[in-house]
Amino acid sequence: MDMHSLVDKILDSYSKIGGINEAGAESFPNRENVVAVINDLQSLVFPGYRTAEEVNSQNIRYITGQRVNRIVSMLTKEIQKALVYEKSAEKTCDCFAQAEKISLKLIEALPELRRIIHLDVTALFEGDPAAKSDEEVIVSYPGLEAIVVYRLAHFIHKAGVPVIPRIMTEYIHGKTGIDIHPGAEIGESFFIDHGTGIVIGETTVIGKNVKIYQGVTLGALSVQKNYQDKKRHPTIEDNVTIYANATILGGETVIGKGAVIGGNTWIIKSVPAGTVVNQ
Amino acid sequence: MDMHSLVDKILDSYSKIGGINEAGAESFPNRENVVAVINDLQSLVFPGYRTAEEVNSQNIRYITGQRVNRIVSMLTKEIQKALVYEKSAEKTCDCFAQAEKISLKLIEALPELRRIIHLDVTALFEGDPAAKSDEEVIVSYPGLEAIVVYRLAHFIHKAGVPVIPRIMTEYIHGKTGIDIHPGAEIGESFFIDHGTGIVIGETTVIGKNVKIYQGVTLGALSVQKNYQDKKRHPTIEDNVTIYANATILGGETVIGKGAVIGGNTWIIKSVPAGTVVNQ
Amino acid sequence: MDMHSLVDKILDSYSKIGGINEAGAESFPNRENVVAVINDLQSLVFPGYRTAEEVNSQNIRYITGQRVNRIVSMLTKEIQKALVYEKSAEKTCDCFAQAEKISLKLIEALPELRRIIHLDVTALFEGDPAAKSDEEVIVSYPGLEAIVVYRLAHFIHKAGVPVIPRIMTEYIHGKTGIDIHPGAEIGESFFIDHGTGIVIGETTVIGKNVKIYQGVTLGALSVQKNYQDKKRHPTIEDNVTIYANATILGGETVIGKGAVIGGNTWIIKSVPAGTVVNQ
Amino acid sequence: MDMHSLVDKILDSYSKIGGINEAGAESFPNRENVVAVINDLQSLVFPGYRTAEEVNSQNIRYITGQRVNRIVSMLTKEIQKALVYEKSAEKTCDCFAQAEKISLKLIEALPELRRIIHLDVTALFEGDPAAKSDEEVIVSYPGLEAIVVYRLAHFIHKAGVPVIPRIMTEYIHGKTGIDIHPGAEIGESFFIDHGTGIVIGETTVIGKNVKIYQGVTLGALSVQKNYQDKKRHPTIEDNVTIYANATILGGETVIGKGAVIGGNTWIIKSVPAGTVVNQ
Amino acid sequence: MDMHSLVDKILDSYSKIGGINEAGAESFPNRENVVAVINDLQSLVFPGYRTAEEVNSQNIRYITGQRVNRIVSMLTKEIQKALVYEKSAEKTCDCFAQAEKISLKLIEALPELRRIIHLDVTALFEGDPAAKSDEEVIVSYPGLEAIVVYRLAHFIHKAGVPVIPRIMTEYIHGKTGIDIHPGAEIGESFFIDHGTGIVIGETTVIGKNVKIYQGVTLGALSVQKNYQDKKRHPTIEDNVTIYANATILGGETVIGKGAVIGGNTWIIKSVPAGTVVNQ
Amino acid sequence: MDMHSLVDKILDSYSKIGGINEAGAESFPNRENVVAVINDLQSLVFPGYRTAEEVNSQNIRYITGQRVNRIVSMLTKEIQKALVYEKSAEKTCDCFAQAEKISLKLIEALPELRRIIHLDVTALFEGDPAAKSDEEVIVSYPGLEAIVVYRLAHFIHKAGVPVIPRIMTEYIHGKTGIDIHPGAEIGESFFIDHGTGIVIGETTVIGKNVKIYQGVTLGALSVQKNYQDKKRHPTIEDNVTIYANATILGGETVIGKGAVIGGNTWIIKSVPAGTVVNQ
Repeated sequence: MDMHSLVDKILDSYSKIGGINEAGAESFPNRENVVAVINDLQSLVFPGYRTAEEVNSQNIRYITGQRVNRIVSMLTKEIQKALVYEKSAEKTCDCFAQAEKISLKLIEALPELRRIIHLDVTALFEGDPAAKSDEEVIVSYPGLEAIVVYRLAHFIHKAGVPVIPRIMTEYIHGKTGIDIHPGAEIGESFFIDHGTGIVIGETTVIGKNVKIYQGVTLGALSVQKNYQDKKRHPTIEDNVTIYANATILGGETVIGKGAVIGGNTWIIKSVPAGTVVNQ
Repeated sequence: MDMHSLVDKILDSYSKIGGINEAGAESFPNRENVVAVINDLQSLVFPGYRTAEEVNSQNIRYITGQRVNRIVSMLTKEIQKALVYEKSAEKTCDCFAQAEKISLKLIEALPELRRIIHLDVTALFEGDPAAKSDEEVIVSYPGLEAIVVYRLAHFIHKAGVPVIPRIMTEYIHGKTGIDIHPGAEIGESFFIDHGTGIVIGETTVIGKNVKIYQGVTLGALSVQKNYQDKKRHPTIEDNVTIYANATILGGETVIGKGAVIGGNTWIIKSVPAGTVVNQ
Repeated sequence: MDMHSLVDKILDSYSKIGGINEAGAESFPNRENVVAVINDLQSLVFPGYRTAEEVNSQNIRYITGQRVNRIVSMLTKEIQKALVYEKSAEKTCDCFAQAEKISLKLIEALPELRRIIHLDVTALFEGDPAAKSDEEVIVSYPGLEAIVVYRLAHFIHKAGVPVIPRIMTEYIHGKTGIDIHPGAEIGESFFIDHGTGIVIGETTVIGKNVKIYQGVTLGALSVQKNYQDKKRHPTIEDNVTIYANATILGGETVIGKGAVIGGNTWIIKSVPAGTVVNQ
Repeated sequence: MDMHSLVDKILDSYSKIGGINEAGAESFPNRENVVAVINDLQSLVFPGYRTAEEVNSQNIRYITGQRVNRIVSMLTKEIQKALVYEKSAEKTCDCFAQAEKISLKLIEALPELRRIIHLDVTALFEGDPAAKSDEEVIVSYPGLEAIVVYRLAHFIHKAGVPVIPRIMTEYIHGKTGIDIHPGAEIGESFFIDHGTGIVIGETTVIGKNVKIYQGVTLGALSVQKNYQDKKRHPTIEDNVTIYANATILGGETVIGKGAVIGGNTWIIKSVPAGTVVNQ
Repeated sequence: MDMHSLVDKILDSYSKIGGINEAGAESFPNRENVVAVINDLQSLVFPGYRTAEEVNSQNIRYITGQRVNRIVSMLTKEIQKALVYEKSAEKTCDCFAQAEKISLKLIEALPELRRIIHLDVTALFEGDPAAKSDEEVIVSYPGLEAIVVYRLAHFIHKAGVPVIPRIMTEYIHGKTGIDIHPGAEIGESFFIDHGTGIVIGETTVIGKNVKIYQGVTLGALSVQKNYQDKKRHPTIEDNVTIYANATILGGETVIGKGAVIGGNTWIIKSVPAGTVVNQ
Repeated sequence: MDMHSLVDKILDSYSKIGGINEAGAESFPNRENVVAVINDLQSLVFPGYRTAEEVNSQNIRYITGQRVNRIVSMLTKEIQKALVYEKSAEKTCDCFAQAEKISLKLIEALPELRRIIHLDVTALFEGDPAAKSDEEVIVSYPGLEAIVVYRLAHFIHKAGVPVIPRIMTEYIHGKTGIDIHPGAEIGESFFIDHGTGIVIGETTVIGKNVKIYQGVTLGALSVQKNYQDKKRHPTIEDNVTIYANATILGGETVIGKGAVIGGNTWIIKSVPAGTVVNQ
């Protein structure tokens, strides 16, 4: 058994089992690059908290400018690949120009995204008796990290970019155990505590001031492939609280304003506003 | 309190509390090295998807050859350590030759493993309405990553290598929240969605076309140390679906072909083929 | 839309949305540095297991000495920042001296911490039929990693250091899915298996020889911010076993000695010693 | 004096003192990249001698292939920049295609270049009583390194590439103190010993089996800018030996076959074949 | 012979042979850091030529700002050490403030230094028939690199900083073989070709438009330690040319305007303006 | 012209032009590794001066111990290769044991080597009016660096190790332009100033308190290969001074005690003690 023939067999497998190879790395968004963009974006959102590099009034302009340049340059390339890939069977697109426009729009939206993320930080601090300060929340809460990356990925998802938003949220899913699909709609002042095991499906709609604890699933009743374009996941209205390990399923299930869903509950029908549901 | 005396106290502790030290790093498989091998193996399975390095028709032979060489060289060393460690109390083995043989067998098996992994990719794409393409599954689904590493670790486990398969699956457990023991037997076209909190025990047997959602435990009823060699975990036959947070326990528990196990259920007895079990 | 004006808008957002920026990286503990300290501490606890660097009788003194120096130097800086930050509104403290004293005390405590961690290793090996050796536990069990980091963070927490213990436990929460608040009190020979989804709250008290499985929550009944200083989480006495996905809530809830809490149970009242609770 | 205004002044200087700025790094060959190519080329010429990476019969094909790919890719980009830069005032060229063709030609020429370099190695070994083996010459003689880089740079120079050959020879000039212009013509079996201070000008012509010692200058008598296209440097015929610190100047100066030029001599007229010239 | 006793012997040697140890790295300027500053300064002088990082109109402000911040921060620390070291036997100085002031002054002087360096570039291009463009000079001529580093080091030397200017010029001496003492005074439009072996002593004074070739020494006649504060090296007036390997010695030796000094000459007396000196 | 056939041609050239390939990197000392050893050795000789790593009373023991371990381990491997290579045609040697013994002897000799190097530092400081302190000499003088590396290489040379001493001195030759053969014998308090272009041949013998300036050659009259074992280079007795660019040749040439050899002189006969030789 010699090494060269082993290599030949693997190469042969590449040409035969085509569905799981890449013809060339240039033609599909690359996970390593997308992760680098996510980390840079988080540093832009919370300057001085995430990386060891010192940020002060003398250098913040330059560090910020470098980050913006790096993000626009890398993200444009990855979005371009994603657009080219999606259009391959159809008419060509001016994919580079389109990709750059989306990257710049994301940067332009950052001040507004930071305003919303600030509300999330406040919600986490207010909602958790164990939280000692905003800074502690920013620097250590996985729930916040999952929300921030979701908000960034959701922006890119709404701009019509395939694949990349999913790489972003699955990366943070790996880090935090919190799985939020970038297609979900989530209102202001969103609160997640502990978070491990949370699943929020693609067509979920969540209002303002909602609180969700670890192990909560907002899922689909049916998982038929042909349901792809239907609303398959529940709607959670403003001020709802959902305790640990509750499961809420179905696209027509609505949890009304201010309802409280107890831990370990199983819900597949709508719940009226203000109701308290226990096991 | 001076630094040198602190160091002396720690060194003293090393000589006294022997059970949790290493006499020498050469004598036990090293986590960092095993993780490097896992990542190289994943790049070999999905060339061009995982790392930023460009793969194209000009360089794929060389990149593949380098990866194969690196894997064989590193894995052989780690397997050798594992074999030496295990045999220490017994007769000596020709551990290097044995280790190299196993490494080469793994490389030789890769085309077949890729065929099976391709079926897993297809199962994930078909089973999840949110999946937009095979490529999205490959590049972003933690469930797939857990399955791939399990299949590689299982191969090494069956070749009789101790410790290393467990380092591999626990590494990916950390990354994905999916805990599959390398001793489990899992058939083709295995589907995991979301996945956080899944536990699949050492003596579990799973058939073909099985679907499992987040938080599912396939565990043991008894956890007595002396049950080590018994079948302690359930058998799941072909075409079974197990929804989120179901718990199925016991070595004699069999879920029959095509059964559907609802979310949050607690099962400690066998379920006949075709049955639907709800909470 | 030109790049410079985008940068200006982000800088403007930094000055306006002040709550989520850092005036300067020097003034708040930094996550990257704290993570580096955690990893060095783990290498000190288990020399030769975690990193690829070879440890042997010739170099262990020097490697240990370097690690101690590096830890004391980095940890002192981070603790100093944490203390300065906390005191900012009050009288000044001699924060550097205080920080260095705490760092040195941690190093001094390591031999005793290693003794306790050795008991945890033994508990994991004894409690899991799938465990083949102490070494396998040390090198691959996420439960052990979570316990070790908790014990280190708890020491720093008891020394009165804010924020840093939380960064430590949330880092390992991200890696293992096991969320133990550094404020919890946990006795000797603690056993965690699989672990994903475990939550152990700030005021939990756990005795000796306790066993906990994946998805267990030891949480609060009320999450009002003004309950911050009350005991909000349960007390688990010696020799209790809590199976997967059990939820135990409330500061006055006591699980008596030797009780066995079954999987998927929901407990908000005390359980007498020796009781077996099933769903 | 504030930092931002200092930066502004430097930026202002960039726009005013235009001759020494780069409009964009893409438009001029980059020193770091060219140096990387030189080092890769040397590893291709002497596999296994220069870098710590192990080369053996199992991996040499893959390491070689990777090097070839990396060199062709990087060198093509740098040559393209050099060609674009040179043509800027003139008609456009199909610079990428041309650059790639030159890079591939260099790779194609490597077996022949290695044959010639082998003769140089032999000449150094034969000519220096202190040399103990061919391998010692390859791994330690700066004279050989200067000759090898000259031969590579000369090939690229003859292919009509501006700037890059000069970056190559000046890089090795820095490392060895030996300054050979890439335009010089040098025959087979060239011998340099010690080498520091050697200068070989652009229009020098050197025959076979020539030996040159440290501090020798083969230079121009006139250094008027308008002499640019004339032969300004001497011709050295076959089998000539030139001892340390000799200075030979002028484009019409010919040192005839087999002549021996003593150390510290000053020569501005031709020397007949077979002559011995002393101070 | 055991390792620990060998280490003890070396430590013992450190305490005995005190003159060549450092009590602590903080107390003496560090070569690695000074070299990093030199390289950053060169990139500031010639943006886009030296490093692989792309410089364009979008990012030049940020890259420049980052470089300025990094240089000021690192250089201030090193200058502070140098000042503290020098003053140790005397009264204390406010060394940090003084060091920062000098660093900022250097940055402030950069536009003017770039103007002068531009003249040097032009002199090199005009003076060397082999030079094809300003860019080739900037990117490949060691003579230019030596002049640039000299001009930066000379500025710091004149500001009264010990040791650091010497580390700078000796670093570039190592790279180019050109040894210019930072104390020398050198006028505009200075030309060096080939350069290896050039020595320019501490009290040398050089006018404008001077040309110097390889191996030229401008040295001292006497090398008595007590001559330290005298002018020991020659004066070279405007428009002088000195060909290869000429040696000019003595503090009272003056080479008059426009003189031409031939190669390999030995000069220890003054030469009148306009004279041509040959061997 | 396709890439794979180019690679094949180069591989073909490897098998044909055998003299300049390596069968395997394991079988010949590697330049990168030897250079790493040199740098570590220099840090051991001058702790705190060469690298950015802080050295203080708390960590010097550990840094020193780590350096000693690293040097012994790497140097032993490289010496072993050199010994195996040399013996290949003869009887086998116990090369590993022999190599380790030599490495340990070098470490054991370091205190004595440091005593001698201290005398060299003093000689440089005393001999150069431009030197402001011992520290300046240590941190910036290339002459000192060349002497230090020569003294280390000479020790290894005398221990009978082939090739490696030459790699060491040629590395420093590249950095400083000073070419000292490791076989030369050089007495205490050796002084080199400027140094570029100095050549000191293999069989040179130099006494105490000798001073040598730039461009001096101590060379051979005859360079016949069969003179390999004869004394080919001059003897320089105590207290001799040799000024810049002097050339002294021949194995029987003796420069007597206290002689002064002027710059640019050419000497091929012995010079009596106390003589002053000028051009």
